[in-house]
Amino acid sequence: MKIHETLDAYIDAHTSEATAFLQSLIQEKSVQGNELGVQQLVTRKLESLGLRPDVWEPNAHELDGHPYYIPSRPAYKGSPNVVAVWKGTGGGKSIILNGHVDVVPEGDTAKWTQPPFGGTIVDGKMYGRGTTDMKGGNVSLMLALESLIRTGVRLKGDVIFESVVEEESGGTGTLATVLRGYKADAALIPEPTNMKLFVKQQGSMWFRITVEGRSAHGGTRYEGVSAIEKAILVHQAVLELEKKRNSRINDPLYAHIPIPVPINMGKIQGGSWPSSVADLVTVEGRIGVAPHESMQAVKDELKETLERVSAGDPWLKDHPVRLEFFGGQWVPNQLATDHPFTEVVVSTFEEIYHRPIAVEASPWGTDGGLLGRVGEIPTLVIGPGETRVAHYPDEFIQLSEVVLAARYFARIIAAWCEPTAS
Amino acid sequence: MKIHETLDAYIDAHTSEATAFLQSLIQEKSVQGNELGVQQLVTRKLESLGLRPDVWEPNAHELDGHPYYIPSRPAYKGSPNVVAVWKGTGGGKSIILNGHVDVVPEGDTAKWTQPPFGGTIVDGKMYGRGTTDMKGGNVSLMLALESLIRTGVRLKGDVIFESVVEEESGGTGTLATVLRGYKADAALIPEPTNMKLFVKQQGSMWFRITVEGRSAHGGTRYEGVSAIEKAILVHQAVLELEKKRNSRINDPLYAHIPIPVPINMGKIQGGSWPSSVADLVTVEGRIGVAPHESMQAVKDELKETLERVSAGDPWLKDHPVRLEFFGGQWVPNQLATDHPFTEVVVSTFEEIYHRPIAVEASPWGTDGGLLGRVGEIPTLVIGPGETRVAHYPDEFIQLSEVVLAARYFARIIAAWCEPTAS
Repeated sequence: MKIHETLDAYIDAHTSEATAFLQSLIQEKSVQGNELGVQQLVTRKLESLGLRPDVWEPNAHELDGHPYYIPSRPAYKGSPNVVAVWKGTGGGKSIILNGHVDVVPEGDTAKWTQPPFGGTIVDGKMYGRGTTDMKGGNVSLMLALESLIRTGVRLKGDVIFESVVEEESGGTGTLATVLRGYKADAALIPEPTNMKLFVKQQGSMWFRITVEGRSAHGGTRYEGVSAIEKAILVHQAVLELEKKRNSRINDPLYAHIPIPVPINMGKIQGGSWPSSVADLVTVEGRIGVAPHESMQAVKDELKETLERVSAGDPWLKDHPVRLEFFGGQWVPNQLATDHPFTEVVVSTFEEIYHRPIAVEASPWGTDGGLLGRVGEIPTLVIGPGETRVAHYPDEFIQLSEVVLAARYFARIIAAWCEPTAS
Repeated sequence: MKIHETLDAYIDAHTSEATAFLQSLIQEKSVQGNELGVQQLVTRKLESLGLRPDVWEPNAHELDGHPYYIPSRPAYKGSPNVVAVWKGTGGGKSIILNGHVDVVPEGDTAKWTQPPFGGTIVDGKMYGRGTTDMKGGNVSLMLALESLIRTGVRLKGDVIFESVVEEESGGTGTLATVLRGYKADAALIPEPTNMKLFVKQQGSMWFRITVEGRSAHGGTRYEGVSAIEKAILVHQAVLELEKKRNSRINDPLYAHIPIPVPINMGKIQGGSWPSSVADLVTVEGRIGVAPHESMQAVKDELKETLERVSAGDPWLKDHPVRLEFFGGQWVPNQLATDHPFTEVVVSTFEEIYHRPIAVEASPWGTDGGLLGRVGEIPTLVIGPGETRVAHYPDEFIQLSEVVLAARYFARIIAAWCEPTAS
């Protein structure tokens, strides 16, 4: 097919430019609240393609009260979404291309061998926070889009490119795009799946558990009640809940995943003085939600577990453990393997990669849940970069994978949105 | 004895004044680093009695390298000691009266029903951080001293009043008094013993345990190693060590104390993101040292316990738990029950309280260890206020106990330092 060769040739001729663009995106430290710089780069890129991006900050006031809105921040000043629509000629199926630009913090910089926001290239890999999760995938999308526009292809369906904020803390950015009216017949999110196709994505929620104790002088600690000791009871009970929840999962897609829907207790903080008994401990974590589960059912199950812990302890009985859900929330999602969009994504894969596509259920949530459950948009997740390096020190992406994914995405878009006959 | 009646009468006539003075001391929030205001009040009080206080900041540079110096802060700027010597006429035995002015933080203010630094009086009790631990006892000492000076008593021995800093974090203040040359034939510390006589005091040390994990995305938490889970192993091992150490204590003085030498793990902190696996946890605590033990032997025992934990865990084997001793350190102390000073303290007690004195071993360390082991000064600890309210919300002291203790202390000083015949 002539068009494929043209697109491939364009992409090959523009890999250096795309690499430099990715590097500039990495050098913008777009952690939560600091996404303006990177979005300005994206905006300029889209404008250079002749598009007129819609740039707006999510409005906390408008979002408030929406059942899927988790207010991670009081306001989103300086954290705009960028959406550009490449209008089709009409009569075709439309597609949303969605990627987030926010990144998690770099963590302990001593564990990085490369600068966390340098975008340095070593042996064909670019290093830096956000290379894999997920500016690499975003650049693949933009390069695909660019190849289509610059080579004069005309599509029947609309292509809607969305560069969103707040994915890492619950999806306010993508929710805002849906509520602003951006819909399509399908959506593609190039989160780092190492080019596996995630037809199901695990959802998740952040929670905070507060455990009360009674303070006392450490020298007479038997007169107090250690909130740390009680928090350990809670910790063990939550691990048991994790076991129970996972024993119920029999989806073959999760067969090779040690813990399909993990509960991660990631942060603990308690006590204020070495020689006082700790009177307050907070544990913050993330609970996975299986693709078929409702958020509320999972909340209830965690709540019941903690109630059981409290009821079974003489101190906690009168000072029950408190539970709240806060910050991040990712809605799970699934799309049938025989959906027409899945079929396009699967068949196109072999053309580019010359091997069968691996179909999996993802161990983490994406904005796909919001597109799927709130926007009712059939959504799939597949992208370059390996999950195992996301959120880690020395996060990197293989640059050749970014380019190959651009070829793949260009063909998917063309196949789905259908070129005009001209 | 005429002198006793005179002293009692003076004290009774000045209780309102002493109460107001105590209130002003409480209103100075003299947490670590913030002791200047309270020491200025003490200085003015001593000056009003005709004394010329020695006011100086401990010099970290001079203290450095002393085997009993635990640098809790890099410098003591703005945290002076105050020492005043009331010279005797000669030929008598001298006494040190030692009390600290630093207080532990107020903790969760929501748990206080009275303002933590208000010094409010309800039903004869004054409330506030430091009322019991130990500004109440300090005021008893100062009122006793005032009664002796103001009623014209002359003593043969010197009376050395010491208002010190840094007791709550290891005794730098008192160590500095010893190294500055303040010595005496006996020392009295009115820590809140509820007027029980502590002939033995438990020592203690602060420690910090650092546990390493490996970070990972919470959704694939099985790819990481939770430092929180490993810290729980450590926590349990330390509780077992506490059991073992206490099973060895057979001193009848400790017979009624549930845990004679407790190990308190008071503070825990770890992880930085709810949906990342925690890669670092620190636990800070306090380990009790029995009166007969050496500090080093206790350090070694904790170290060996942690080494055993590390050796027994596949991850910790290669990432061993780290242990450091920092901040607070209180040296244990003991004085024979047949020492002449003990005899004076015991016999005088019955005169005032009309019941036999209770002799105990304290569950916590005091600056008495430094006076005893470094200064070689026979030291006893007895004072008003109940241990159980120290370091707690709604700390308070019964004001009548402060006054009664002042009478008692005045008589001890008179008996030990011996009035001139005049």
